[in-house]
Amino acid sequence: MILAEARERTGLPIVVEIMSQVQLDVMVKYVDVLQIGARNMQNFNLLRAVGETRTAVLLKRGLSATIEELLMSAEYILAGGNQQVMLCERGIRTFETTTRNTTDINAIPVLKNLTHLPVILDPSHATGHAGYVAAVARAGIAAGADGLIVEVHPDPARAVSDGKQSLKPEAFAAMLKQVGQIAQVMGRNLALAHGAYQQGWA
Amino acid sequence: MILAEARERTGLPIVVEIMSQVQLDVMVKYVDVLQIGARNMQNFNLLRAVGETRTAVLLKRGLSATIEELLMSAEYILAGGNQQVMLCERGIRTFETTTRNTTDINAIPVLKNLTHLPVILDPSHATGHAGYVAAVARAGIAAGADGLIVEVHPDPARAVSDGKQSLKPEAFAAMLKQVGQIAQVMGRNLALAHGAYQQGWA
Amino acid sequence: MILAEARERTGLPIVVEIMSQVQLDVMVKYVDVLQIGARNMQNFNLLRAVGETRTAVLLKRGLSATIEELLMSAEYILAGGNQQVMLCERGIRTFETTTRNTTDINAIPVLKNLTHLPVILDPSHATGHAGYVAAVARAGIAAGADGLIVEVHPDPARAVSDGKQSLKPEAFAAMLKQVGQIAQVMGRNLALAHGAYQQGWA
Amino acid sequence: MILAEARERTGLPIVVEIMSQVQLDVMVKYVDVLQIGARNMQNFNLLRAVGETRTAVLLKRGLSATIEELLMSAEYILAGGNQQVMLCERGIRTFETTTRNTTDINAIPVLKNLTHLPVILDPSHATGHAGYVAAVARAGIAAGADGLIVEVHPDPARAVSDGKQSLKPEAFAAMLKQVGQIAQVMGRNLALAHGAYQQGWA
Repeated sequence: MILAEARERTGLPIVVEIMSQVQLDVMVKYVDVLQIGARNMQNFNLLRAVGETRTAVLLKRGLSATIEELLMSAEYILAGGNQQVMLCERGIRTFETTTRNTTDINAIPVLKNLTHLPVILDPSHATGHAGYVAAVARAGIAAGADGLIVEVHPDPARAVSDGKQSLKPEAFAAMLKQVGQIAQVMGRNLALAHGAYQQGWA
Repeated sequence: MILAEARERTGLPIVVEIMSQVQLDVMVKYVDVLQIGARNMQNFNLLRAVGETRTAVLLKRGLSATIEELLMSAEYILAGGNQQVMLCERGIRTFETTTRNTTDINAIPVLKNLTHLPVILDPSHATGHAGYVAAVARAGIAAGADGLIVEVHPDPARAVSDGKQSLKPEAFAAMLKQVGQIAQVMGRNLALAHGAYQQGWA
Repeated sequence: MILAEARERTGLPIVVEIMSQVQLDVMVKYVDVLQIGARNMQNFNLLRAVGETRTAVLLKRGLSATIEELLMSAEYILAGGNQQVMLCERGIRTFETTTRNTTDINAIPVLKNLTHLPVILDPSHATGHAGYVAAVARAGIAAGADGLIVEVHPDPARAVSDGKQSLKPEAFAAMLKQVGQIAQVMGRNLALAHGAYQQGWA
Repeated sequence: MILAEARERTGLPIVVEIMSQVQLDVMVKYVDVLQIGARNMQNFNLLRAVGETRTAVLLKRGLSATIEELLMSAEYILAGGNQQVMLCERGIRTFETTTRNTTDINAIPVLKNLTHLPVILDPSHATGHAGYVAAVARAGIAAGADGLIVEVHPDPARAVSDGKQSLKPEAFAAMLKQVGQIAQVMGRNLALAHGAYQQGWA
């Protein structure tokens, strides 16, 4: 697989969204992290299936899921014995229309308070506009998030999907620098922030 | 007035919420900033009245007002010739129930992009829980906010209102320290962060 | 006043929105019902002021007010001794964009269960589209509403405001016929439905 | 299967929720209607799979799905050649807490305007309280809905799930009578209303 080759060349781990149980056998062979997308957060059959594996899972909050429901979905995975679950805030649906979603920044300290699981923020989906990604990424780390997922594309205008919210590599590098400084204030090191480098999945 | 005396002794400026036009004449004599509360954001008669003064105005976003509506309410004040308007994000109403409101952190960079007016964050109302105030205050400054309003009380359990979301002075001091460090990363100095010191109004 | 003359000629009662206490003295002389608009539902000074009068009040639910908050606002009026309070559901703010607001039809039976006050539905604001008004008006009466407020205009395209949601007189007459039949199923008579005839206020 | 036997004895058609593609082969043999639950409305693999069958599908709107998204999900099924799709409004998530969800009654005329597909209302989930089901069921038919799904249980307090929103048979019969009368006003006959008799699915 091409992704596996990309991992070998770059040393970057691979996150891929799984959308159906039938994809599971192939995916666990190649990917480092199985992503459960927002629209599948309450696909309980899929949650149970990934809970049977020992591959790390990135569980995205549903578009209008409560924090309690996110935690209950995580329980479906944990109950199968898979302890490697990361929670991801990716914006919720509100009446506000200047942004694609509303980043629930409160969810970061709330989740850190209620659970020991790592909490990741996705400022790309949570804002939907490249121009707002860096500000919300900084906010996420300042609020205590353990990591970020940020969409990057060398030519956003030609991206197959989500180009509007994708950073160019230069903007991404600038963002990483600021985020790294805030991570230091929070007592986290830059390496951690770099570990969140992930390219282009949604 | 007691507040005027408090200002003299401490050197702190005074912000008071104005709820009706009939209070205006007395208030402009004593207060430094007139606050328009969230429930009055679209009380157009009141907006026009404070627009006629030359006292600074802190305009809070309504519970379910869009960013566009907040800006349109600011226009009512500006149209009267009063240019000293500060906008305040104080959380919006969503389906989430673990917090009193949902901090719309996206609103910070969106407002900074759409207007030159200063943008203030109120993490006390936006979370409703003292335990989450510091995290969201840090997030606000990291996202580019120009100031914070934070509720502080020496004995929150006995506060007349909003005790649940009020910080004790020690917690407030700890918060200020972190916020000051993040302000530095953002190229703002500590004095600015201190300027946002405001005690107990909602 | 022109409205007073219109009342005399047509026999129709007059409802006018009051937006500030300073309008109160003049209005109580001429109008039959004082309307508190959605944006003023939590303008507590105004609520107290109309509570001191003995003029009927039509209290509209705020754009994102809970049913409990609507009832608490009614209490401000009732506490002043004014028992003539009507509650009005006029749509709440949600993420849905095909309509101006979302009619909370559940609010009708919930309010009828929690209070003895009359419950009115405003399908014009609650939908924002003339083409959907009749369907939602029928739904309101079927759900148990005591009355309707419907915007009517002889030439909606030239209406000063809210033309998009205004019915032409013919469409209004057709709506009234259907609504009257459903009112009969509900054991209410047509006269009641006619009593809700109100032209053009918001 | 027990359900197949129940159908034979009563003559009632069977609706069962399908939660995963792997259940499809067995279900198409026995059920009359495949239900796609709210949490699976954007499970595109499942939508495509039922689109390949020729069994009728009842597609429930997601908890915070827009009307446009509901129609786009229906397109996934229709694109496979399965033309028998019914759309179901079952309440959306808002800030209101006196009811389990908020019935978007506007969605009935909007959907009837935008599509030729039958529109069903589920007042049980849309209110979450048995005491409000009849009022909202009447509203749905008055707004133009083509059918209803109502939860009924002989002993709601002992129901395995959703007891709080289940009607006892007597209350259901009383509801059907009122709904039938409103259906007549709408020019629909009672048989149609009876066709919507469905017991206990969610």
